[in-house]
Amino acid sequence: VSATRRLKPGDTIGILGGGQLARMLAIAAAPLGLRCQIYAPAGDNPAFDVAAARTIAAYDDAGALARFGQTVDLITYEFENVPDATVALLASSGAPVRPGVMALRISQDRALEKAFLAEHGVAVAPWTPIDDVAALTAALADPVFARAILKTRRFGYDGKGQLRLRAGENATHAFAAIGRAPAVLEAMVDFRTEISIVAARGLDGAFAAFDATENRHDGGILARSTAPAAVTPRTAEAAAGIARRIAEAFQYVGVLAVEFFVVGEGADERLLVNEIAPRVHNSGHWTIEGAETSQFAQAIRAIAGWPLGPTGRRAATVTMDNLIGDAIAAWPAIVVEPGAHLHHYGKAEARPGRKMGHVTRLKA
Amino acid sequence: VSATRRLKPGDTIGILGGGQLARMLAIAAAPLGLRCQIYAPAGDNPAFDVAAARTIAAYDDAGALARFGQTVDLITYEFENVPDATVALLASSGAPVRPGVMALRISQDRALEKAFLAEHGVAVAPWTPIDDVAALTAALADPVFARAILKTRRFGYDGKGQLRLRAGENATHAFAAIGRAPAVLEAMVDFRTEISIVAARGLDGAFAAFDATENRHDGGILARSTAPAAVTPRTAEAAAGIARRIAEAFQYVGVLAVEFFVVGEGADERLLVNEIAPRVHNSGHWTIEGAETSQFAQAIRAIAGWPLGPTGRRAATVTMDNLIGDAIAAWPAIVVEPGAHLHHYGKAEARPGRKMGHVTRLKA
Repeated sequence: VSATRRLKPGDTIGILGGGQLARMLAIAAAPLGLRCQIYAPAGDNPAFDVAAARTIAAYDDAGALARFGQTVDLITYEFENVPDATVALLASSGAPVRPGVMALRISQDRALEKAFLAEHGVAVAPWTPIDDVAALTAALADPVFARAILKTRRFGYDGKGQLRLRAGENATHAFAAIGRAPAVLEAMVDFRTEISIVAARGLDGAFAAFDATENRHDGGILARSTAPAAVTPRTAEAAAGIARRIAEAFQYVGVLAVEFFVVGEGADERLLVNEIAPRVHNSGHWTIEGAETSQFAQAIRAIAGWPLGPTGRRAATVTMDNLIGDAIAAWPAIVVEPGAHLHHYGKAEARPGRKMGHVTRLKA
Repeated sequence: VSATRRLKPGDTIGILGGGQLARMLAIAAAPLGLRCQIYAPAGDNPAFDVAAARTIAAYDDAGALARFGQTVDLITYEFENVPDATVALLASSGAPVRPGVMALRISQDRALEKAFLAEHGVAVAPWTPIDDVAALTAALADPVFARAILKTRRFGYDGKGQLRLRAGENATHAFAAIGRAPAVLEAMVDFRTEISIVAARGLDGAFAAFDATENRHDGGILARSTAPAAVTPRTAEAAAGIARRIAEAFQYVGVLAVEFFVVGEGADERLLVNEIAPRVHNSGHWTIEGAETSQFAQAIRAIAGWPLGPTGRRAATVTMDNLIGDAIAAWPAIVVEPGAHLHHYGKAEARPGRKMGHVTRLKA
């Protein structure tokens, strides 16, 4: 029953995580008549501002999780760094968990994720698992990793837990710098650009992708997304096809994002998957105004077991710029700029590197 | 200071009333980084689902009002049937109240409203105040009121507190039927259609109106709004001009709606004001998808002291149909209809005559 449950207006979605993704999910759920309850540890939780109820508790508080599970009709998570044990515990309470625990478990571990992609015939950059200094020393001797990036297997986001390395660098220092945590070493790819696909798979197996989006990062953090991406139609189609293959392999229900490196140009253009996110994604924020259905409404529709909405783009070009740290101070100029749409996350403190909001611009 | 206070992201707006208007105001406030707290008596309060905090208390609970006033940066109200004493008490707490107490007091009393309109040279249907049976008997003898409508001065909405009368009807029975409350008798107008203007005036005195909207009522309740209204450009301009005159007379800050009867056709087309609402209005719901700025975002901008947003229409025609009572059961068909946008208010019980949601359709 749990696996096929469809929500109806008045039902409640429990969201693990209280950040801006949960906030925008809750805003999108409201017009569909669905309530959101947020579960998050103490802190600055912008989703609390737009939720029907909130639980402030640790992700390992079994009692609080059990009570939360009993008051909601469905459970989802806003990001993949929620412990999978938390989600598994909630799943045992009887409420469906969408997207499922499998997608969460695999996407929160870079080694599992890369192995999963390889199993499904999806190309990634050369990589090797690193569990100790000896493994790192050996890998750095391989010319494939002459320029490489060491990433912790778990709990990395926005460039955290990552270190760029070159052949001959001191493996002991490098491994210490990432906290001696299980890691992967990835060969640096000479990519031409980065793109992503944000797509949804419904409870009925339907699949719908938004347009491929081109992403520019700055210091490891997404700075700007532009839709559509400047890639060949064949590449855009291939990217959507890979997202679909991944969604089907997971028997996924919800919105997911796949980030790609684009290597080569024109007829030589090809794709390597960088990473998967089992959730709405920063590179899909442009869909709020820029697509017929926003990624947030689409995610709610998918997990609720409702039909997916149309994903057409509403303007020739849509750009989304993150407002990071002090950049949020530009809000007074943005609210008077014709065609600009401010999304202020209402966070209390504008720390450097912190995503404080974004602005979307539609160009005819 | 209070009169000129401008909010900044992170500030909190206190809203009196917990219905769908407050709900849609709170949803619109979030992307601007503004929090909403709701104050409402116990009951089904759909705005509670999307608010940062809620106070459940009576409108005459002075202690609860005082505490509420101290936790918010600004106070507004979602509808004009909030007692003006409540708003006046809150105003004395120091937080600015927008729109002001004057607009509230006048628009919640049909006799004061009509006198105010007359003072500002705005045409209304013939009317007379009715305080007792004798006054009603005398008025019904006047041929002007051969077909008339008796309305309580206060607390009427959606056709409640109203009674249609003809010459010769029993004044005692009629006055009893509306509860022997102070009333007005209005001559029935042979109008061709009904239109409304939803407009905003900013703290800086700027004025911006949405397109004139044509409204069809059913049993005293708005059934459908269509933008733009099928009236001459001269009439549409005159309607916006009247809304502006009213807004300026009130030194209004916020969104207001003016409902008109349109009498005659073509060059003979003329306007009579039916009533004023000092708030966002059901006939402006089409602006959520249909205009560059929604009436809800515009209201938040105006009361926050921010510049008004652009009001251009986004499609050739926009229609908004209310989903009243059991009509809400159509939601599964609406969520799969291309170009249709569901707004489900999340109310628990679909009683007859109750506004449960609406659906907006854009037509190129």
